Amino acid sequence: MIGVGTGPGDPELLTLKAVRAIADADVIAFFTKKGGHGNGRAIVDAHVRPGTIELPLVYPVTVEMDKDGDDYRDAIADFFDRSAEEIAAHLQAGRNVVVLSEGDPLFYGSYMHLHLRLTTRFDAEVVPGVTAMSGCWSMAGLPLVQGDDILSVLPGTLGEDILAERLSGTDGAVIMKVGRNLPKIRRALAVAGKLDGAIYVERGTMATAAMTPLAERDESPAPYFSIVLVPGWKARP
Amino acid sequence: MIGVGTGPGDPELLTLKAVRAIADADVIAFFTKKGGHGNGRAIVDAHVRPGTIELPLVYPVTVEMDKDGDDYRDAIADFFDRSAEEIAAHLQAGRNVVVLSEGDPLFYGSYMHLHLRLTTRFDAEVVPGVTAMSGCWSMAGLPLVQGDDILSVLPGTLGEDILAERLSGTDGAVIMKVGRNLPKIRRALAVAGKLDGAIYVERGTMATAAMTPLAERDESPAPYFSIVLVPGWKARP
Repeated sequence: MIGVGTGPGDPELLTLKAVRAIADADVIAFFTKKGGHGNGRAIVDAHVRPGTIELPLVYPVTVEMDKDGDDYRDAIADFFDRSAEEIAAHLQAGRNVVVLSEGDPLFYGSYMHLHLRLTTRFDAEVVPGVTAMSGCWSMAGLPLVQGDDILSVLPGTLGEDILAERLSGTDGAVIMKVGRNLPKIRRALAVAGKLDGAIYVERGTMATAAMTPLAERDESPAPYFSIVLVPGWKARP
Repeated sequence: MIGVGTGPGDPELLTLKAVRAIADADVIAFFTKKGGHGNGRAIVDAHVRPGTIELPLVYPVTVEMDKDGDDYRDAIADFFDRSAEEIAAHLQAGRNVVVLSEGDPLFYGSYMHLHLRLTTRFDAEVVPGVTAMSGCWSMAGLPLVQGDDILSVLPGTLGEDILAERLSGTDGAVIMKVGRNLPKIRRALAVAGKLDGAIYVERGTMATAAMTPLAERDESPAPYFSIVLVPGWKARP
């Protein structure tokens, strides 16, 4: 099994190693929402050999659903168990399976759940990818951290006070899971004195990408693929 | 100008976009130590067109030097000023200049100093790259952060107490600038209760890569390209 990072969205941000793994695969597995075609699968489309077996792994629930409930936890654990068994069947048959993962596989990626379930029985290689956050700050041309800076990657789901405290105690920051948390994130950044300079980016590196200073973004909920970047880098020789 | 991330070391971890930019360049600029050939330049070697103008930017001091002194600060600022002017001369002559940056250009990369100096006068595009930390945790097959985890990227130069406090208050962590700080980092991780599970990786994804549980690493100073990975991910459905 090879876990392959597809990068943040632009198909040209695939690595040479990813392209080779995809072209050599007997089976390509990819996560997708119900009714979707898989963002990772779309990114690699130009490199999939005709005749490759496609294995869509369809999330039983939407990723925006409340993740604290037991029902969600059971449904998602069961989904990963079943997905791992589907892949195991191909591996046992001697097929070379590539599992696509948007961004970088071991950095907030769903692939990690399969990796843990399968590496007790099968060999796995991981091909790292360009992360969504790298795609976003590159698109924004925003130098993020330098030298001895501390970088914090924070979920926008944190409480406002904790978020403000974390933002005060770091140099650079990346805030993920913006969505409906945008007004709270903005207030926390203002408390931390870091709203100036913060940049809001949605769908970074994709064809529909957009960005704006966070201070100027309206209050409507942000899409799932959105991120807030807070530059660090105090000392600039 | 295009700032191009070369990834963590394995030439196959270049992106398609990086390869295209390098092949199309009139001038390739790259950082190198005195007497060296440039790690970034070596990574892209297979893709440089014959006839491309090469512009080595030779650091006036070693990267391991104490960075708190005024002499260092002045020398490095002057170096970046001169490097920016060398690039500006090519840009003014209408040449297409690619500046190589190991890893990802805007993430702890020297490229950032040129970006700030030149983007007031010239357009710049940044091609993100796979970071060294992604290369390291992928090589180690170590799932790092998931869901609502907090990730902290910390310099090993921090004081032991601050480092221990930061490690206690995060889920996953990446500790950079290990070098002579290795014994201190190990003590701080032990205080934070996170030494078990921490992985030491040197020269991740390069031909000479090596890794070991940090608890088992000897006390000799680590090489410059080394990193400590602390996995987060408490909840594993």
